[in-house]
Amino acid sequence: MPSPRILAFSSSKVGNGGYLENAAPIIGNFLGNAPLTIAFIPFADVTLQYDGYAAKVKEGLAALGHTIETVLPQTAKKQIEKANVIMVGGGNTFKLLSLIYTSQVLDLVRDKVSAGIPYIGWSAGSNITGPTICTTNDMPIVEPKSFNALGLFPFQINPHYYNVKPEGFNGETRDQRLTEFIVENPGIPVVCLPEGTALKFDNGVLQFIGQCPGILLHSLEDSTEIFRKEIAIGEDITRLM
Amino acid sequence: MPSPRILAFSSSKVGNGGYLENAAPIIGNFLGNAPLTIAFIPFADVTLQYDGYAAKVKEGLAALGHTIETVLPQTAKKQIEKANVIMVGGGNTFKLLSLIYTSQVLDLVRDKVSAGIPYIGWSAGSNITGPTICTTNDMPIVEPKSFNALGLFPFQINPHYYNVKPEGFNGETRDQRLTEFIVENPGIPVVCLPEGTALKFDNGVLQFIGQCPGILLHSLEDSTEIFRKEIAIGEDITRLM
Repeated sequence: MPSPRILAFSSSKVGNGGYLENAAPIIGNFLGNAPLTIAFIPFADVTLQYDGYAAKVKEGLAALGHTIETVLPQTAKKQIEKANVIMVGGGNTFKLLSLIYTSQVLDLVRDKVSAGIPYIGWSAGSNITGPTICTTNDMPIVEPKSFNALGLFPFQINPHYYNVKPEGFNGETRDQRLTEFIVENPGIPVVCLPEGTALKFDNGVLQFIGQCPGILLHSLEDSTEIFRKEIAIGEDITRLM
Repeated sequence: MPSPRILAFSSSKVGNGGYLENAAPIIGNFLGNAPLTIAFIPFADVTLQYDGYAAKVKEGLAALGHTIETVLPQTAKKQIEKANVIMVGGGNTFKLLSLIYTSQVLDLVRDKVSAGIPYIGWSAGSNITGPTICTTNDMPIVEPKSFNALGLFPFQINPHYYNVKPEGFNGETRDQRLTEFIVENPGIPVVCLPEGTALKFDNGVLQFIGQCPGILLHSLEDSTEIFRKEIAIGEDITRLM
């Protein structure tokens, strides 16, 4: 059985960089030079329309020389079935998961990735690699059939990680929100990915890569104590698998 | 049939003020001087425990002279049935709605408010006054049975409204998130409540009250154009009912 291959980016953009500018060379190295057909799932999109969204992605990854096919809900099964790579873009995680359910491709994507088809995601596309979408930052603008996601990783991902409370504002900080998740779901770790970072799972090794450290939040299953630990750039975190 | 009476605050705290300090005199005027029994629903709480949460609320509203009873999931029906006032605190909206469903009090609360029992909420407690929780800012740390909420108002509420994008950060702004909601749910207006503001529905009149203007976002049902309009302090917005 081949080992799954996964690239999960925090975001499509880093700082003021261009769309997928930071991700493109990493994706290029990950996929290699042989031309591949990438099934791009744009279901997280709300306002761009799928064609407009796919055009941005194709432009961002043009230098890689692969073929990017836009997956549509009606033909999703067939398109994913024959793809060499599955790529899932960001947007709204609830809309993404909702359409994955209505297109009935959740199990198919999981099975293809288990069988060695590379999975590349960013933002919402990374969120759904965990057991559930319970650590998304997105607004629940539509109700998916379930919060259960792909479960490619046994831990949750929080993309666009950013723990700052604006002065005089009384909404929760990101760490407060994630702490609430852990209180409600003890024993499930959360890997927090600041923009400019990603997880790479390849050859059975899970590595944290990027421009700055990440954060690991977790508790023991029988404890209310919450641990917060920095993940170093390049760190091997295969222990979380 | 008596008219519903509703106070829906953006937040429990305003700026660096004390807990419920801004809300207490408004609640005092709304309820009057005769001592009442308030059923306080603390289900949105995640980390404080209900007793600790209720203690904070009782302290914040001590000057009003009413009796505050903490509603527990097991006895919620009985407690809400005999209350003079229903009060729902903030925290996590998903947890709040989840426990409202498992306690089977959604219809009961709606019926009591329709029958004239005053409803007071803040943050998550305001979010659930709309048709759904689709415009909450909270993280979906638990999955409620449904996103459908009390529907006391025919529009959505966005509490803690704050539309600022941190420099160099590529997550969505609040307006982007709410615009996505409207694209997915055309025709349903969203009333955005900055901290320090509230909605007051009394004698059939809906009024926006507080320290700064609010924002109304909406689209026509058959249009993709989105309107963004300021709501003035003190404005009568009964037209939204």
